[in-house]
Amino acid sequence: MFTAEACAAILREIRTRQPLVHNITNYVVMNNTANALLALGAAPAMVHANEEVEEFVALAQALVINIGTLSPAWVAAMDKAARAAAARPIPWVLDPVGAGATTYRTSTAAALARLDPACIRGNASEILVLAGATAEKTRGVDSTRASADALAPARQLARTTGAVVAVTGATDYVTDGAQVIGLANGHPLMAKVTGLGCTATALVAAALAVEKDRLAAVAAGLSFLALAGEIAAERSPGPGSLQLHLLDALYQLDAATIQRRLKVVA
Amino acid sequence: MFTAEACAAILREIRTRQPLVHNITNYVVMNNTANALLALGAAPAMVHANEEVEEFVALAQALVINIGTLSPAWVAAMDKAARAAAARPIPWVLDPVGAGATTYRTSTAAALARLDPACIRGNASEILVLAGATAEKTRGVDSTRASADALAPARQLARTTGAVVAVTGATDYVTDGAQVIGLANGHPLMAKVTGLGCTATALVAAALAVEKDRLAAVAAGLSFLALAGEIAAERSPGPGSLQLHLLDALYQLDAATIQRRLKVVA
Amino acid sequence: MFTAEACAAILREIRTRQPLVHNITNYVVMNNTANALLALGAAPAMVHANEEVEEFVALAQALVINIGTLSPAWVAAMDKAARAAAARPIPWVLDPVGAGATTYRTSTAAALARLDPACIRGNASEILVLAGATAEKTRGVDSTRASADALAPARQLARTTGAVVAVTGATDYVTDGAQVIGLANGHPLMAKVTGLGCTATALVAAALAVEKDRLAAVAAGLSFLALAGEIAAERSPGPGSLQLHLLDALYQLDAATIQRRLKVVA
Repeated sequence: MFTAEACAAILREIRTRQPLVHNITNYVVMNNTANALLALGAAPAMVHANEEVEEFVALAQALVINIGTLSPAWVAAMDKAARAAAARPIPWVLDPVGAGATTYRTSTAAALARLDPACIRGNASEILVLAGATAEKTRGVDSTRASADALAPARQLARTTGAVVAVTGATDYVTDGAQVIGLANGHPLMAKVTGLGCTATALVAAALAVEKDRLAAVAAGLSFLALAGEIAAERSPGPGSLQLHLLDALYQLDAATIQRRLKVVA
Repeated sequence: MFTAEACAAILREIRTRQPLVHNITNYVVMNNTANALLALGAAPAMVHANEEVEEFVALAQALVINIGTLSPAWVAAMDKAARAAAARPIPWVLDPVGAGATTYRTSTAAALARLDPACIRGNASEILVLAGATAEKTRGVDSTRASADALAPARQLARTTGAVVAVTGATDYVTDGAQVIGLANGHPLMAKVTGLGCTATALVAAALAVEKDRLAAVAAGLSFLALAGEIAAERSPGPGSLQLHLLDALYQLDAATIQRRLKVVA
Repeated sequence: MFTAEACAAILREIRTRQPLVHNITNYVVMNNTANALLALGAAPAMVHANEEVEEFVALAQALVINIGTLSPAWVAAMDKAARAAAARPIPWVLDPVGAGATTYRTSTAAALARLDPACIRGNASEILVLAGATAEKTRGVDSTRASADALAPARQLARTTGAVVAVTGATDYVTDGAQVIGLANGHPLMAKVTGLGCTATALVAAALAVEKDRLAAVAAGLSFLALAGEIAAERSPGPGSLQLHLLDALYQLDAATIQRRLKVVA
């Protein structure tokens, strides 16, 4: 269903078309996200002002909305941008960072999820909360649960929202409510670098910009990050080195590497 | 009074308990701060909205308030979060970046210092200003004075506020008003990387989250950064390399390295 | 007209005087910009609050205004800071990121350009838009045109605003309306790292802080970045490595390297 060939074809399309990916994302990861998109071959822009988000969505091929660092003005711009993306339409991806940690995050994420995202990507805790499958408090922005625990709720959330839902963790799961793709690449050291989940979300948006099969596009976006991360981790004595090698590995990623390493498990 | 054994024990506790450290910090260093906390073994979160800071403080084991990039909405959230931390209580650490450079910074730092911080960490200029020991203008965010010049004012500030006060520079001093610990690790190249003072503050918060002896906790937090920085500097031809090796060294820091390198001077 | 000797002399002055460069810049590049200024030998500060920008301009030797991530409060602070800089006077540099992409960016950049900047640095698309030489939409924040295409409009813009105008690309052009300097250093891999144009702008501000010959100062600032970037690219298998080596190369840049590598082409 999802193959190395499909994954490599999407990478090739990104490098050929260099889609403009509009990001409304958090302060912590803006720089890294932009660099990861550039390393992969896409063209990033970070634009969040109410005064210009709609006009910018009209230029972009995909949109990322990441709620990592919220404030009322930004939430208003996120709403406006999501509606503009859904209306054009261009695919937009929701990253519900920290949903479940505070009421503000949970309600903001839930409201955005109703605005027709092409994909929702979160960790298990975030997806459980968005699917209404738990009332437990998450511990900050980290997941307290394994990704498999959120698989059934993810399928339910996909059916409710119409989005492809991705739950990332040691194994990543991608579902449109009916089908499920499991992906087993990556490395534990990646959890010691801040914001790689946010990077995954952005690479998913780049893939959705060039590929109409949403399930394949989301799986490809996650795989680019997981493959580059595991290659980088093999070269890295610690998380500082991993950041550097991750960008180099995204830049160097090719069909042969995807063919050799990609692990589709379900 | 402060030993390598105590320092190593605090590191071990951080790695075991992985305390959630809530940061309201400046835009410049958010990414680096989060990565340093992760590399050390703590769990960072960056949350600043008025709508959620109190709820988030209730999840955290420690709080950082760093005034590096201010605006009125953030100052209000800082006030709210500091009060919530003091009320719970969890330890919170004030980093008065640029106090003395502008009236806004000086008055914001002074107001926060009255809200019962567990620790105030600054450079000599900032501590002199907060202690009311000088009316001279600081030069931007850098200190114009050696850390020893601020030792007597730091002791006074500790007595006034009830906080452990840390003055960092070539030698770091930590005082509760009565006792003083001097620490002589670090490397001059660290001054060529932005925001390592802010990183020190965050690591202090992680240490305070797991250790009730505040003086030891603050000394340990500063030592983690100074030790990792000097190890990194020995491997680095310039400040770009230093950033990478610093995160790797924090990740690899262990009791044997602390035992071999820690220099307590007073 | 612009020589390796002049370029090296400006570098030496920056390292001797360590000018304080006040930056109102975008969230994406704040950290990198600060680190590049430190690596070169200047002293950066990032200060944007309405409550303090004027007071901070009074401490600084140069100011950068970069419109990469806008909001109304920041635009107001930019206006205030630019007027304060022009009044003192200290040199200030405008980076019109994404002018032409949205009405908000174009109008903000145009208004700031009337406030007597010492330099305006942009890519070809941004300079064409500011010069009123095109009505075409730019594609996000990247240029859709070669730098040479913007040379005549850049000369016009320099005459209108009184600023030295720099158009950066594969070849960089610097003009005061009459004279033109062409600079051919740099490397294509630099385009795969976000925000190096913003870094160039900040280094230009550091050079203007110490050198009264504006044309030479702007050419020197651009050259520092282009030289460090090409040295870094030669050591880098990808953009992650390039970021690290770029900071190391800025830190290590010396007169001999400038002498050996600088390519002045016009």
